[in-house]
Amino acid sequence: MKAPAWKWFIEYTHPTQAHMHGISKYIFSCRTKYQDVEFLEVEFYGRCLILDGKIQSALYDEYIYHETLIHPAMLLAGAPKKVLVLGGGEGAVLREILKHPGVERLVMVDIDREVVEMCAEYLPEWNAGAFQDPRVELVFCDAREYVKNTGETWDVVVMDLTEPVDDGPSYLMFTREFFRLLKGKMAPKGVLTLQAGSFNPWLLECHSAVYNTIKLAFGTLRSYYTFIPSFDVTWGFIVASDEKDPLALSPAEIDAALKERGIEGLRHYDGEAHRGMFALPKDIRALRDKEKRIIEDNNPLITF
Amino acid sequence: MKAPAWKWFIEYTHPTQAHMHGISKYIFSCRTKYQDVEFLEVEFYGRCLILDGKIQSALYDEYIYHETLIHPAMLLAGAPKKVLVLGGGEGAVLREILKHPGVERLVMVDIDREVVEMCAEYLPEWNAGAFQDPRVELVFCDAREYVKNTGETWDVVVMDLTEPVDDGPSYLMFTREFFRLLKGKMAPKGVLTLQAGSFNPWLLECHSAVYNTIKLAFGTLRSYYTFIPSFDVTWGFIVASDEKDPLALSPAEIDAALKERGIEGLRHYDGEAHRGMFALPKDIRALRDKEKRIIEDNNPLITF
Amino acid sequence: MKAPAWKWFIEYTHPTQAHMHGISKYIFSCRTKYQDVEFLEVEFYGRCLILDGKIQSALYDEYIYHETLIHPAMLLAGAPKKVLVLGGGEGAVLREILKHPGVERLVMVDIDREVVEMCAEYLPEWNAGAFQDPRVELVFCDAREYVKNTGETWDVVVMDLTEPVDDGPSYLMFTREFFRLLKGKMAPKGVLTLQAGSFNPWLLECHSAVYNTIKLAFGTLRSYYTFIPSFDVTWGFIVASDEKDPLALSPAEIDAALKERGIEGLRHYDGEAHRGMFALPKDIRALRDKEKRIIEDNNPLITF
Amino acid sequence: MKAPAWKWFIEYTHPTQAHMHGISKYIFSCRTKYQDVEFLEVEFYGRCLILDGKIQSALYDEYIYHETLIHPAMLLAGAPKKVLVLGGGEGAVLREILKHPGVERLVMVDIDREVVEMCAEYLPEWNAGAFQDPRVELVFCDAREYVKNTGETWDVVVMDLTEPVDDGPSYLMFTREFFRLLKGKMAPKGVLTLQAGSFNPWLLECHSAVYNTIKLAFGTLRSYYTFIPSFDVTWGFIVASDEKDPLALSPAEIDAALKERGIEGLRHYDGEAHRGMFALPKDIRALRDKEKRIIEDNNPLITF
Repeated sequence: MKAPAWKWFIEYTHPTQAHMHGISKYIFSCRTKYQDVEFLEVEFYGRCLILDGKIQSALYDEYIYHETLIHPAMLLAGAPKKVLVLGGGEGAVLREILKHPGVERLVMVDIDREVVEMCAEYLPEWNAGAFQDPRVELVFCDAREYVKNTGETWDVVVMDLTEPVDDGPSYLMFTREFFRLLKGKMAPKGVLTLQAGSFNPWLLECHSAVYNTIKLAFGTLRSYYTFIPSFDVTWGFIVASDEKDPLALSPAEIDAALKERGIEGLRHYDGEAHRGMFALPKDIRALRDKEKRIIEDNNPLITF
Repeated sequence: MKAPAWKWFIEYTHPTQAHMHGISKYIFSCRTKYQDVEFLEVEFYGRCLILDGKIQSALYDEYIYHETLIHPAMLLAGAPKKVLVLGGGEGAVLREILKHPGVERLVMVDIDREVVEMCAEYLPEWNAGAFQDPRVELVFCDAREYVKNTGETWDVVVMDLTEPVDDGPSYLMFTREFFRLLKGKMAPKGVLTLQAGSFNPWLLECHSAVYNTIKLAFGTLRSYYTFIPSFDVTWGFIVASDEKDPLALSPAEIDAALKERGIEGLRHYDGEAHRGMFALPKDIRALRDKEKRIIEDNNPLITF
Repeated sequence: MKAPAWKWFIEYTHPTQAHMHGISKYIFSCRTKYQDVEFLEVEFYGRCLILDGKIQSALYDEYIYHETLIHPAMLLAGAPKKVLVLGGGEGAVLREILKHPGVERLVMVDIDREVVEMCAEYLPEWNAGAFQDPRVELVFCDAREYVKNTGETWDVVVMDLTEPVDDGPSYLMFTREFFRLLKGKMAPKGVLTLQAGSFNPWLLECHSAVYNTIKLAFGTLRSYYTFIPSFDVTWGFIVASDEKDPLALSPAEIDAALKERGIEGLRHYDGEAHRGMFALPKDIRALRDKEKRIIEDNNPLITF
Repeated sequence: MKAPAWKWFIEYTHPTQAHMHGISKYIFSCRTKYQDVEFLEVEFYGRCLILDGKIQSALYDEYIYHETLIHPAMLLAGAPKKVLVLGGGEGAVLREILKHPGVERLVMVDIDREVVEMCAEYLPEWNAGAFQDPRVELVFCDAREYVKNTGETWDVVVMDLTEPVDDGPSYLMFTREFFRLLKGKMAPKGVLTLQAGSFNPWLLECHSAVYNTIKLAFGTLRSYYTFIPSFDVTWGFIVASDEKDPLALSPAEIDAALKERGIEGLRHYDGEAHRGMFALPKDIRALRDKEKRIIEDNNPLITF
C-alpha cells in the first residue's frame, strides 16, 4: 500500500472511539463568536465543514444527509408554502426545500452569520444558488428568540442544528419548553423535521431523549435514519406533526409525489429508501423506548 | 473529559480512512498457519476477534451481524433441514441457525482449526454451546474443496468468510466458478446467504462484483444491509435462491414465522427490521447496478 | 511501504503531543494497588514496561537510561559500600550498581511488590540476576517511610521513581522536606542521583523545580542528560552531593576509574559520553535558572 | 485534561513509529515542481515548514537547529569570506551566517524557488531580512550543477538539504562523487558543514554512511549532534575540513571568539554547548564505526 496520510482530522465520539480522515487540502479556519470553524478537504469525502471538531457535512455525501432531512417532511406536509429553517448554515437545506415548487416563503435563522458567509464562499455546491433565491430570507439571530417573536404560521419547520455540546450555541433548542413554543407557531397540519443525533445503539441516549421531549408537543412522531458515510454511523432524524404519519406513505405514493412535483434528480431518497429509513431495527426501538429522559430548560442535554 | 486511551486498535479501511478503538484489555494473539489472530477487549464494544488486522465481531454487537446474516435465509428456505456453513469460525452462525427447530444436520467448514478452537475458548458467548450440539459437525479443511467433494444436498448454505484480502485464505470463494459449483450442491429451493462487504457507497465495488457474480448462478438475489456499530459502517449481505424473494415476505409474516418456530429472543431482527434491511437507498442501487465486474478464478477480487 | 501497524501504544506528553509505537506483541497487563501496569513489545524497541500509560524502559535502550543514571554517581562517590535505591522496580538499577565491586549492601525500596515481581518474570534481562544477589535486600514499602526510619548511613542514594503524576505513588518524593530528610541519612560525602524529568526545553519546568528543591539540601549539584530513543526525548538527571563535582572528572579519569573497577562492558557511558552529558546547551541552562519554583509537601509538583 | 486535538500532523519515521503534533492553524500548502510543501502551526512548536511529510523546522526551536549547523563551522574556518549554502530554503541558515562580520559573499543555491519564496512570505522570522542583504545571492538551480560550474573558491560550504528520500530532489547530493567535486571548489582550509540525519541509534545508518563517504574526501571530520524538540530526536551533523578539528576548540576559546565577533544573542550554542555536541556516547561511536557503507552515484542512499 502507499504510505499513510500525514495530516489527519481525528473525530472523537467518545474518549475511546475516534475516526481518522486523511486531510488532502486545507481551505480555511477561524474562530467565530460562537464556534471553531474549519473548512478542509479530506481525501475520501472531499471538502467538508467542521464545527467545534465535529464534521457537519462533506462534499461527496452531503446529499444523503440533506435529502433525508428534508424530503420526508416536505412530502408529508402536502403543499407547504411557508418553511422555517433553524440552523442549516451550509445552505443545502434551502437547496433541497426549494426543489418543492409550492414554497413561497423560506426563512433561515442561523445565529452565526460568519459561518453562513463562509459556507457561501467555500461550499458553493451546498447552497447552489439558494442564498440568492427571492423566496429566501436569511436572518442572523438566536433561533429560539426568532421563534418566540415570529407572528407567522409555518407549514414546515426544519431544525438543522449542531449537537447540544457544552457551551455550544444550540443546547437550549432541544427542550420541552422550546418545542411547545415552536408548536404554537406552526400550522395545524404543520410538520417538524430535525436531525436528532447518532443512531449508534450505544450512543442513542441523545436521540431518545429528544424523541421523548418532542412527543410531549406533537401527536405523531417517527424516528428515522440513514447511514452517513463521512460520519461513520447511521444518523437519526425525527419527523413530527399532529396527524400525518410517514409510515402511511407507500413507496409508490412517494415516487409519484416526487414526480408530480418535478423532483427527479434526487440521488439518495425515493420511495424504497423512504421505506428503509422508517423501518427501525428491533434493538433500536427497544433502546429508544427504554429511555425516559425529558429535556428541559433547566436540565438540558449535553452530548460528548 | 478523561484522558484519551493509550492503547489503540486502529483499523484502516483505506490509506486515508481509519477507525480507532481504545483497547481496554488484551486477551491473546498468535499467528496461525493462515492468518494473524487477535483477541482483545475494546472499551466501547467489549471483547472482539481480529483477523489480519480487521475486526470480525465484537461482544456487544455481534448479535446484529449474526442475526442479520442467518434469519432471512432460514425463513426464506421454508423448513431447512440440512445447512452448510463455510467459514464462521466464531460459532455464532451455528448458534443462530440452531434456533430454527427443523435443522437436522449442520456442517461448518472452516480452514483454520486453531481459530475455531481459540474462539471456543475466548469467545464462549458466540457459540453458546453450539460446538457441542449433536446436530453439528465441524470440518477443518478448505471450504471450496469440501463443496467440490460433498455428495449431500443442502437446503441452506451460509458463507461467513473473511474478506478476500491479498494472500488471505478466502479469495477464491467469491468467483463465478465457485458459485456455479456450490449451486450444484444445493436443493432446488435451496437458499444461499453470505456477508458481502462494506455498504459504504465509496467502497461498494466489492459488494457489487460479488452480486454480479452470484447473479450468474441464481435466479433471484437481493442485497441487504444493516449497520454494524463496531465496523462503523453499514455492512452488505446477499441472499440468493432460484425462486424465493425476501421482498415478498411482509413484516407480519416474518414475525409470525419466528413465533411459530419459537424464536422469540432475537434482539435486532424482526419483521420491521427485515423491511428496512431490504429497502436500499437509491444511490446504493445505482452504484451497484453500474458496476459490471464479474469475479473469476483467474481474475479474483482483492480488497484493501 | 508496508501497511502501518494496527495496534499502537500512544504516549501523550501533552494534549497536542504524542508518540505512536506500533505494538508487535502483548505480554501482560494488570492494575496493582498503585498503578496500571503493562508489559508489551513494540516493534521498534522490543519489550517494554508501561506504568500509568508512560513507558518506563524498553529492552533495546534501557541500558542508556540505566547506565546514565548510575555510573556518574557511583564513580563520584569514590568507593561506595552502602547504596540505597528508591523505586527502580525493573531491577536494572541494581544490575548497574552491582558492577561496582566495592558495594557491600544494596537496598531497594519499592512500594509496589507486584510490579517488582512481574518485572522479575517478564523483564529478566533488566535485573540479570541482581534480585538474587546476596548483597541485595528488597523492601516493599513507601520509600519516604523507609528513609524516615532507616538508622543506616548511605554512601549513594538512587531515586528511580515514576514521575509525580496526579494520584501516582511518588508525588511526595520530590519535596524540600523529603530531600532534607534524605540528606540526614547520607554519609558526609554521600552522593544522590535521580532521574529528573524531561529535558525538552518546553517541558523543563519539572526538572527545574526539582533542581531548585534539591539545591536547598546539597552543596553541589549538576543537571545532566542523555537522549532516550524510546522516550523520544532527552531525559534529565541530577547528581548531588556536598562537595564532589562531576565536572571535575576528566574523560580520561572516568575511563581509568571504570577500568580499575573492572567495568568494561558498558555500552553507552564512558569518559566521552560523560563529558557530553554534563555540558548543557545554553537555552537549557537559561530556562532552568529562570524557574524559581520550590516543591514542598503542601505544594507538590504534578506533571501531565 | 482538555479534549485532545482533532487535527494532527503525524510524522512517520518508520512503519511502526510516528509522532503526532496537534495542529492549531493552517497556513498554506501546495505542490511545487519538486515536493509537497506545507506551512502550518502546531500547538506546541508554532509555525512550521513541512516538506514531503517531514517537518523541516519550527518557529520555537529552529534556532537550535540553525545555530548548531552554522556556528561550529564558521568559527572553525577562521575568518571566512565566501560562503556557499546548498539548500537551506527557509533562510535561517543565511541569518546565522551573516552574524559573522567577515562574510563578504554568501550564495544560496536551492532548486525550489517556490519554496524559498513561500518561506520568505510565511516564515519571515527565519530569514530575518537575510534575503535582502546585499552580500547574499540567491540562485535557483540544481545544487550539484552549480557546484560543478562554479569557478569560485569557497571558505565554508553548508549543506542543508532534505533527506535523500526516494524521488526527492536531494538524493544525489550525498555521494562520493559529489563530495570529491565539492572539495575541489573549496579553499585549502575550507570547512564543510551539513545536517546529516537522525542520531537515533536505530536509525543511524544514514548518518554513518554519509560520514564514511565524506571521509574519503576530507582529512578531518567530526560527527556532532543536538536534540531538536520538534523532531523528537537528537539530530546528527558533520563538520569536515582538511586540518581543523572542532575538538581542539575549548569552551573558553569559543565563547571568546563569539564575543570578539560581536555575536552575543545566540540562544542554544556557546562553548559549553559545543563541548556537549561533539562528545558522542559510546554506542553511537560504535554503531557509526561499524557501518561500512559508502554512498555512490550509482548506489545512492534512500531513507524512509
